[in-house]
Amino acid sequence: MTIRAIGFDADDTLWHNENIFSLTHEKYRALLSPYADPAEVDPRLFATEMKNLRHFGYGIKGFTLSMIETAIELTGGRITAREIQTIIDFAHEMREQPVQLLEGVAETVRGLAASRTLMLITKGDLFDQESKIAQSGLADHFHHVEILSEKDEEAYRRVLSRHGVPPREFMMVGNSLRSDILPVAALGGVGVYVPYHLTWAHEREGEERAAEAPGVFRLGHIGEVPALVERLESGV
Amino acid sequence: MTIRAIGFDADDTLWHNENIFSLTHEKYRALLSPYADPAEVDPRLFATEMKNLRHFGYGIKGFTLSMIETAIELTGGRITAREIQTIIDFAHEMREQPVQLLEGVAETVRGLAASRTLMLITKGDLFDQESKIAQSGLADHFHHVEILSEKDEEAYRRVLSRHGVPPREFMMVGNSLRSDILPVAALGGVGVYVPYHLTWAHEREGEERAAEAPGVFRLGHIGEVPALVERLESGV
Repeated sequence: MTIRAIGFDADDTLWHNENIFSLTHEKYRALLSPYADPAEVDPRLFATEMKNLRHFGYGIKGFTLSMIETAIELTGGRITAREIQTIIDFAHEMREQPVQLLEGVAETVRGLAASRTLMLITKGDLFDQESKIAQSGLADHFHHVEILSEKDEEAYRRVLSRHGVPPREFMMVGNSLRSDILPVAALGGVGVYVPYHLTWAHEREGEERAAEAPGVFRLGHIGEVPALVERLESGV
Repeated sequence: MTIRAIGFDADDTLWHNENIFSLTHEKYRALLSPYADPAEVDPRLFATEMKNLRHFGYGIKGFTLSMIETAIELTGGRITAREIQTIIDFAHEMREQPVQLLEGVAETVRGLAASRTLMLITKGDLFDQESKIAQSGLADHFHHVEILSEKDEEAYRRVLSRHGVPPREFMMVGNSLRSDILPVAALGGVGVYVPYHLTWAHEREGEERAAEAPGVFRLGHIGEVPALVERLESGV
């Protein structure tokens, strides 16, 4: 087979992201501890996020609005305005986190860019994503950057058709089975699953289906991608 | 001259938007009226929005976070959690507003699409904008849709180069001098300013410069665009 283009997810594939959310979750549980059982906080917040997804999409701003809503609900309206300001401050702090590349990313991306068309395909808040891409120092290695509101089969079909890449000659590398691997495998492409040590519950859907899907590979580290490309192309 | 492609701004050029924000401003002033002089509310909110722009960008979610911050500040922290929930409910209501095309838009866009390359070039929240484009029923008339985080000279240069449109053969139609007209005129293209009856203060910047810029035209109604295109191309 030929792999004409390789797509990379961004958050938790190229750079750390979920650790920033995870740290905020921790501060949020601590903030609410006078009012609510910490064990109750995460499931309630997740439920609010899912309810709000159709209005707010992904990203820090929607997450922050969901934190505020959940806090009001969980405290029966007793949370103070000052504590809500603290939640908004979490958002400012999250936005100020410097982008930290995962180990091995810079070399792998630089190496592959020399011989392949690379695409950065990420979802989420346009504003958050653009500023992280700019900060990452990797932008020049990607021929195309696509920031999508959702990464499903239809979205991949559109992007690949726009760039004239046949799905069978496309490889997508990412840490989310739901958003990176399964939709690409369903189109006949290759999905390379490189798990991150933290994964948001919403992105963990489809773990069982993935284990059996053809065209899905699981690697322990992004640095193993070039060898996999070579192996697939040489047909061994 | 030849006009090879025509770009259209979306909010307040193709469909109503600022009226939804304006209505929310009204409800927000009413909500805060037990605490603050209504005349003080809008300037304070605008100041918070400007401060937050670099973290939150444009769109409903950033606006809502700025409303909450301003409310906490203006009330000296006395605003209640329930009132803050009301502000979040404003965001949900804004997201639920159906898209209302401006008068004359559907015919004009349909007519021009028959003979021209049309581009929809909007800025703001990816999620908000995509859902409005889908709802508008106009998506099929546009050859390219670009949702940008900022519409400045550099952003237009990138978009036009990607689509192989020389700036001198590009016309941009919009209601913001700052985001639609001046940057395009600076690149040597044609900016067609069609004012909306409400304009956010941030987008009103540059009114004096525009009056004198070459390549800037002001029309009273979007329905006059086809005649202007014809006039410019025939060189009369």
